[in-house]
Amino acid sequence: MPSSTVAFVGLGSMGAGMVRCVARRGFAVRPHDVRSEPVQAFAEETGSVVCTSAAEAADGASAALVIVLTADQAADVVFGSDGLVGRLPQGAPVVCMSTMSPGRARVLADQAASHGLRWIDAPVSGGTVRAAEGTLTTMVGAEPADLEAVRPLLESFSRDVFHLGPVGAGSTAKLVNQVLVYSNLAATAEAVTLCRKLGVDLQTIYDVIRTAVGTSAIFEMRVPKIIDGSYASGGSMRIALKDLGIVEETARELALPMPMAAQATQLFRAAAASGGLDGDDLAIARLMEQLAGL
Amino acid sequence: MPSSTVAFVGLGSMGAGMVRCVARRGFAVRPHDVRSEPVQAFAEETGSVVCTSAAEAADGASAALVIVLTADQAADVVFGSDGLVGRLPQGAPVVCMSTMSPGRARVLADQAASHGLRWIDAPVSGGTVRAAEGTLTTMVGAEPADLEAVRPLLESFSRDVFHLGPVGAGSTAKLVNQVLVYSNLAATAEAVTLCRKLGVDLQTIYDVIRTAVGTSAIFEMRVPKIIDGSYASGGSMRIALKDLGIVEETARELALPMPMAAQATQLFRAAAASGGLDGDDLAIARLMEQLAGL
Repeated sequence: MPSSTVAFVGLGSMGAGMVRCVARRGFAVRPHDVRSEPVQAFAEETGSVVCTSAAEAADGASAALVIVLTADQAADVVFGSDGLVGRLPQGAPVVCMSTMSPGRARVLADQAASHGLRWIDAPVSGGTVRAAEGTLTTMVGAEPADLEAVRPLLESFSRDVFHLGPVGAGSTAKLVNQVLVYSNLAATAEAVTLCRKLGVDLQTIYDVIRTAVGTSAIFEMRVPKIIDGSYASGGSMRIALKDLGIVEETARELALPMPMAAQATQLFRAAAASGGLDGDDLAIARLMEQLAGL
Repeated sequence: MPSSTVAFVGLGSMGAGMVRCVARRGFAVRPHDVRSEPVQAFAEETGSVVCTSAAEAADGASAALVIVLTADQAADVVFGSDGLVGRLPQGAPVVCMSTMSPGRARVLADQAASHGLRWIDAPVSGGTVRAAEGTLTTMVGAEPADLEAVRPLLESFSRDVFHLGPVGAGSTAKLVNQVLVYSNLAATAEAVTLCRKLGVDLQTIYDVIRTAVGTSAIFEMRVPKIIDGSYASGGSMRIALKDLGIVEETARELALPMPMAAQATQLFRAAAASGGLDGDDLAIARLMEQLAGL
């Protein structure tokens, strides 16, 4: 890194943990989020400045990290009137960790290049707990030299940093992961409901399945939050619908049949309709129980 | 165990490994299968007798283990004209490890009781490799005393023996597991196809997903067999269709919507139609690739 000051835009459920990992690693962070509370909380905790725009976050920074919800938001953060572009030095790396289609990542990278910025396509996986611990999986699509320039930043919040190829390859890996996450989650909700309908204790079934071939990371992360009755896993329904929408769009562009992801998508939409967009993605389990009359 | 001689019926892909675990633990095994080859191979290897019927296997045995494909086959092995019943001593335990609906397990247990036999509902999970190693997950529905009577037998091929409740509870756990196994496998096939369609190296994606939230036991067991081009996982398409059929039947009886399992079922049927019933369940991955024009 040419210097140790970095802009960090997006202190949501994932970003809030990650920005603290970056700060703990000794980087001077200039944080920004459209909501002021998480930025204030971070500033009070770490003594950082408070930036009221992405442009302000970029002042004096040699690199930028962006983890906002959508590709449109990322484009606005970087290229908008109050964006990073123009404030970052020529050749500065922009690490974009928002989930988007590989095609969209390439479009943004081309646009960044036309402004003299280097684009690192770097979505993450692991959930909010691993984000806070700094043990995420980070999936990078970038030129090798561009990845090396930001590796210490990425390692501050990652257990594993994978280089998958050029820009777009990181987003591809993330999409493949999300197909599995949400299909496995919909199947988990359904399996749990079957178990309850048949009257067998869910905690015991959980202990069994964890040692059997039916287990998955999602099963092991989510089922305890069904057993404890909270249905509060930290997974966001808004993100589930958004990511499944990207999968749907990508499949349509490729004319690729994706029957399991399509079924999961319909179920998450139904769960959002009853549980709300602002809720937990475990609303899918409540939906299945309602459908079962439980 | 009152004595150390046991009947073992069903030396298929799972049973062939399990019967060897039982013999290694010092039990005198009386093996039977409708196909003579696996019985001959086992007898040559261990010096056991060769039994040409279930009835013959039961002669002098104090317990019986049955792992055949279907509930109908299990009923025939136990209660048929050449079956175990009548040859086993009164009060002998019959361990039935075939996957079936919980309701069917209870019917067979009642029938066994009317003949003075004790029924242990004990399906297993883990696949052929763990069957051969003796590290299966065994899910037991039985009276506690009946489980204790056969525990040394079960432990000979199990890493974990779980007691889930009365007869039917073991089959419930197995069904819940199979919903997850085949839904996760269909999703894995779809995710792999998306990855290939987008041109990212599957080995690299595999390494990434294993550390990310999308991973599952099925993903980790099956994807290496797609990468190596063999599509030979040891998973049986016949068993996939049979188990998904039991899920479908159970869901129908409960009037329970199971949209993910239903979608997976349709896909496995399509895969069987092109790949054959006698093939590997990874034909689902070939199917998805064909549908994608790969």
